[in-house]
Amino acid sequence: MTYCVATMIDSGIVFASDSRTNAGVDYISTFRKMRVFEVAGDRILVTLNSGNLAVTQATVNHLERAIKSNIEPNLLSVRSMYEVAELIGAALREVRRRDSAFLKENHVDSSVNFIVGGQIAGEDQRLFLIYSEGNFIEATPETRYFQVGEIKYGKPIIDRIIRADTSMNDAIKSVLVSFDSTMRSNLSVGMPIDMACYSRHSLQLAQIHRFDDQDNYMQRLHKSWGEGVRAAFAELPNFEYQSDLS
Amino acid sequence: MTYCVATMIDSGIVFASDSRTNAGVDYISTFRKMRVFEVAGDRILVTLNSGNLAVTQATVNHLERAIKSNIEPNLLSVRSMYEVAELIGAALREVRRRDSAFLKENHVDSSVNFIVGGQIAGEDQRLFLIYSEGNFIEATPETRYFQVGEIKYGKPIIDRIIRADTSMNDAIKSVLVSFDSTMRSNLSVGMPIDMACYSRHSLQLAQIHRFDDQDNYMQRLHKSWGEGVRAAFAELPNFEYQSDLS
Repeated sequence: MTYCVATMIDSGIVFASDSRTNAGVDYISTFRKMRVFEVAGDRILVTLNSGNLAVTQATVNHLERAIKSNIEPNLLSVRSMYEVAELIGAALREVRRRDSAFLKENHVDSSVNFIVGGQIAGEDQRLFLIYSEGNFIEATPETRYFQVGEIKYGKPIIDRIIRADTSMNDAIKSVLVSFDSTMRSNLSVGMPIDMACYSRHSLQLAQIHRFDDQDNYMQRLHKSWGEGVRAAFAELPNFEYQSDLS
Repeated sequence: MTYCVATMIDSGIVFASDSRTNAGVDYISTFRKMRVFEVAGDRILVTLNSGNLAVTQATVNHLERAIKSNIEPNLLSVRSMYEVAELIGAALREVRRRDSAFLKENHVDSSVNFIVGGQIAGEDQRLFLIYSEGNFIEATPETRYFQVGEIKYGKPIIDRIIRADTSMNDAIKSVLVSFDSTMRSNLSVGMPIDMACYSRHSLQLAQIHRFDDQDNYMQRLHKSWGEGVRAAFAELPNFEYQSDLS
């Protein structure tokens, strides 16, 4: 299982992904689900992905080969994030066209999702969610984040916190709490977590960090959040429970 | 969509269900998803259900007809909760055997889940989850609760709070917070909420309560929880974010 999230605020975008791949009952590996394409001063693109690993890797390989072979258009040549989303969608369609008949024969699910966000010089930061079918949607002021994979456990805290004017620090914390909640409820989402922070208009990646299961900050966050939630629970008003009612 | 939960603690069982049925895009109705079978001093059984409404209603109808017609065995004649779960599973299999071929023709999902819990004189309180296929599992000291329907948003708070020695008051509050979180994230789970509280060994229902969207206690709970979670978030340690890193 996978969990990835990207939240866009006025001051930038926070991307994060777990790195666990469950390729079978007793075979759990870690593979990076985040990729960064950067040309400092011109563009920064970050992709996150969930779903069939062979399909996502083939799609990324397709995109990288176009860059290396200078096949136009490619992720480093297009002038808008919209075209970036189109390129990923087209590569995904190509891979699924090639593979999905074979996968279907063995009832293997070939569906995948990509999140891609960042900024290209000449336009503002943008964030997209690309579906298995290759079509996509863009984040708006009303929908400032996208999640893929095991999304439900970690959704409530993002809903509560993320607004246009949320600080980068608070956006980072909400994303990491979102991971903490998800990993607590679904053991197949696991450390390490990759996090990338982009500052709007910087056109370079501000920070990339890998949190492993020994990470001191994640342990403090986990403890503080658990204590805070228990304190919030202890403060709740009691319901008038009458155990002797007959 | 539906959300139902039942949690068993040493002092009793708390059952709760939403009552929204979404039978189509623009047709949302409320139907009770909770049923109580009570013979004071002998037994108390509470059922909750999710899934295809026609199938659940037919199953319950089947069980009620057996009681009314004195067909043995029935829910009021068997001497163990295990047999209660068997009866529900058998009724469910009968209904699906009759209807599912017709439903499949139109790609209608005929799956349903039942939760049933309570106590019959002569044995302890017990709690079961019955699957669509008519088989079932029983709650254990390690798994003290069952949820059906839209289960993920409301799971974390139950995981945090429910232990064997959790008080009835805290069990009630965790169940209601669980509903609050679910309704916040999934609009198709909605008020009113039906809640039934059973005190172990009482062999009668202690309290049944319907919370509608004007309910004063639910409004206070919602406000207090939101404030508490925001306070817990504000207390989290900051991540060392360096926006000028290059």
